[in-house]
Amino acid sequence: MNMALVFSLLGTIVLVEAVSMVPSLLIALIYGDGDAMVFVYSILATAAAGLVMRLLAKPKDRMLRGREGFTVVALSWIVLSAFGALPFLLSGFLPNFVDALFESVSGFTTTGATVLSSFDWMPHGIVFWRSFTHWVGGMGVLVLTLALLPKLSDRSAHLVRAESPGPSLSKIAPKMGDNAKYLYYIYAALTLLEFICLLLCGLNPYDAALHALGTAGTGGFSNYSASIAAFNSVAVEAVMTVFMILFGVNFALYYFLISRSWRELRQNEEIRWYLGITFGCMLVITLMLLPVYHTFGEAFRYASFQTASILSTSGFATANFDLWPVNVKMLMFIMLFIGSSAGSTAGGIKVVRIALLLKQGRREIRRTFQPRKVEMIRFDGKGVDDHMLHQISVFGFVYIALVLLGSLLIGLEGKYDMITNLTAALTCVSNVGPGFGAVGPAGGFAGYGWFAKVICSFLMLAGRLELFPLLILFYPSVWRKT
Amino acid sequence: MNMALVFSLLGTIVLVEAVSMVPSLLIALIYGDGDAMVFVYSILATAAAGLVMRLLAKPKDRMLRGREGFTVVALSWIVLSAFGALPFLLSGFLPNFVDALFESVSGFTTTGATVLSSFDWMPHGIVFWRSFTHWVGGMGVLVLTLALLPKLSDRSAHLVRAESPGPSLSKIAPKMGDNAKYLYYIYAALTLLEFICLLLCGLNPYDAALHALGTAGTGGFSNYSASIAAFNSVAVEAVMTVFMILFGVNFALYYFLISRSWRELRQNEEIRWYLGITFGCMLVITLMLLPVYHTFGEAFRYASFQTASILSTSGFATANFDLWPVNVKMLMFIMLFIGSSAGSTAGGIKVVRIALLLKQGRREIRRTFQPRKVEMIRFDGKGVDDHMLHQISVFGFVYIALVLLGSLLIGLEGKYDMITNLTAALTCVSNVGPGFGAVGPAGGFAGYGWFAKVICSFLMLAGRLELFPLLILFYPSVWRKT
Repeated sequence: MNMALVFSLLGTIVLVEAVSMVPSLLIALIYGDGDAMVFVYSILATAAAGLVMRLLAKPKDRMLRGREGFTVVALSWIVLSAFGALPFLLSGFLPNFVDALFESVSGFTTTGATVLSSFDWMPHGIVFWRSFTHWVGGMGVLVLTLALLPKLSDRSAHLVRAESPGPSLSKIAPKMGDNAKYLYYIYAALTLLEFICLLLCGLNPYDAALHALGTAGTGGFSNYSASIAAFNSVAVEAVMTVFMILFGVNFALYYFLISRSWRELRQNEEIRWYLGITFGCMLVITLMLLPVYHTFGEAFRYASFQTASILSTSGFATANFDLWPVNVKMLMFIMLFIGSSAGSTAGGIKVVRIALLLKQGRREIRRTFQPRKVEMIRFDGKGVDDHMLHQISVFGFVYIALVLLGSLLIGLEGKYDMITNLTAALTCVSNVGPGFGAVGPAGGFAGYGWFAKVICSFLMLAGRLELFPLLILFYPSVWRKT
Repeated sequence: MNMALVFSLLGTIVLVEAVSMVPSLLIALIYGDGDAMVFVYSILATAAAGLVMRLLAKPKDRMLRGREGFTVVALSWIVLSAFGALPFLLSGFLPNFVDALFESVSGFTTTGATVLSSFDWMPHGIVFWRSFTHWVGGMGVLVLTLALLPKLSDRSAHLVRAESPGPSLSKIAPKMGDNAKYLYYIYAALTLLEFICLLLCGLNPYDAALHALGTAGTGGFSNYSASIAAFNSVAVEAVMTVFMILFGVNFALYYFLISRSWRELRQNEEIRWYLGITFGCMLVITLMLLPVYHTFGEAFRYASFQTASILSTSGFATANFDLWPVNVKMLMFIMLFIGSSAGSTAGGIKVVRIALLLKQGRREIRRTFQPRKVEMIRFDGKGVDDHMLHQISVFGFVYIALVLLGSLLIGLEGKYDMITNLTAALTCVSNVGPGFGAVGPAGGFAGYGWFAKVICSFLMLAGRLELFPLLILFYPSVWRKT
């Protein structure tokens, strides 16, 4: 392990994080709630730490190998979350480091689970930072670093691969740095578009910005305890529903759209699965909610928003869905596993993997009675090789094993019921935010002890990095010197 | 599809079933509770149906191909359960066919879930039949048929393969018929041994026989509503704990033991995993139950029995574990997936698959940072080929998908809470019996409607036949003529 190089790269990322705190400082200065100094201290501390890391580490070999790449990714998210916790800690709103770290991890991993029981009265800068971490974490802080520092990008293809969600079946630009830049242009443009739409719906600029950032990262933090229900506006809900769905789409598709690559768009199978699942669930949940909301329109209003929110792994809420009938909750429980498209800002197992798992299941059933028939599994019109299929099914197992093991560990505290612990682990790994029971939309993670919060933080990071890049840290051989 | 051959074989199996009802008739005659005629009618109807099937179907081609083999297996279990429901139906104790079928399926699949709310007052013959179906279903009715009819066995290796639980890594006898006979000798000998042990513990012969049959099949039906807690005897619990563990062992190992094949025994890795998981869970649950039962002895008493009961997928109970602390319940929830060894009478995903899934997960994590390193996964000291590993991971996905889909369908009735519906589906697929909540050890499946009961019956059959042999029935191409 080339620790000097790892440290040096981590230093760069921490410096980028210091810069990313500046917008929150500006907000703090504009609103003058007294939290400006919190950001000044946070930025200084973060920048100083980054500089020290850069100066102390003098890597002789600047070549980044696979092992170092994944270690940088895993460690960078941990370091990022640690420094991102500073504003919560220094402001005194979350004086406990575990709590501050949980909130920061939840922000960067775009989960949106919270240990704050109320935040309507918190200063604007702090609340803005909470939502801004969603935006930074959504596309990936390494992608951001690469977009800002093109020099780094030539030798860091595997860095992005480790951080970007889902098995990548399509590449958009030949150069990684360009790739990162294009992605950020699209990301920023879509965020801006939602911001404008929310302004047109009558939200004030602060609320509009906050929710645009949260939607873009598929995060879920709001500045109102009642989440989106606080606006009680069909227009706002409609805009957010549409954008939650849009941010769950593979970003490569937007690039294809801009570059008029119709063939790639037509061949893309994931988008059809994604939209099929989304609209299918919306319809089924609408029908299931008819006994609750009486009219089709009302039922559709709540069903469509919540479906988009869960599948995009945002986690915003317009209703306390924990009180919905058990059949809706069972379906939403399954939806918590699925998530959205690979290459989007969303979490979950990802639609492409679910589709390929279902295709494999069907093939396996057919093989039972036709063992000699060779059947190629196709996706996007192309055959998918068996090695990738095997990897995906192992991924599926590790995902579920992690959820079960996580809920077991959370349960060790002896708090709450089974469904709370189970969905707490699941919603963390899938980066959604709310679960059911005590961690439902009306509740939160505040009631858990430090141990469960640490486990949840780990699960959120594992989910955001698609399990393996984080799990390798438990391998002693990763740490061995080369 | 050679339907004539399928029908003819089903006829044979139905005839065997008619014979298997004779012991219950004898019990009914001995106790004279007035249920003897129920068995006379059931036996006559079953035998007549079997004869008609045999006489009407005149297969020209007697060669059994893969497709027919699996169809016979799947249909035979459905037909078997349908005729097995006759005593419940005719006696008037379960006048609804869906209820009677559920109870019969639960018996043959060795699940032990019940729709009866109380059965302490039921006639001895009927209750004996309930437990006897466990014994028949445990080893497999096809294995029984093959043991009785050696002529059939030469062309039916894949029949047994379809019915016997778990991926078979070892074969014991060169000829299938001999194989089946050896298995039944061991099975009967162990059952008899437990019967004697239970007699020595002071149980009357009827209770001893009933619980020996139930343990052997890893079923879980008891003739007392309070299950094993009714005896309140440490000796009975100890005997049953030991035998539940013994019946969860791969039966090939007993054959190796008798034939003194020490090398095979030493190399066997599954037994080490199996015992490791069993004793590990016992210890952890004992520690977790200390706050409930105060002394280590008492905690160990309940923990060891319930661990053996859940992991062997028997489902007997000595305590209402639904009232235990949430950390124990979370662990038991995971144990509900695992089950016991392949080649035993138990259900679940099976220890060998869990072990190979964990090994694959570990390899996948290592591959993340050492993508070029070739690592062979070994089991029993031998390399396992990638095709089998791939199959096992797809099996794991289909298993969990079936549990989730099943609980979603059960939930459509809108009854009970999420954890009840989720564990109802899980306990059915894993052939355990009790779950949590309303289907916990103090409850049962009586409260569900006909739809959920049909779904549960399907899930029990799917679990018993290791998913694929039953799922193929949904493929139109299976039914096509050759």
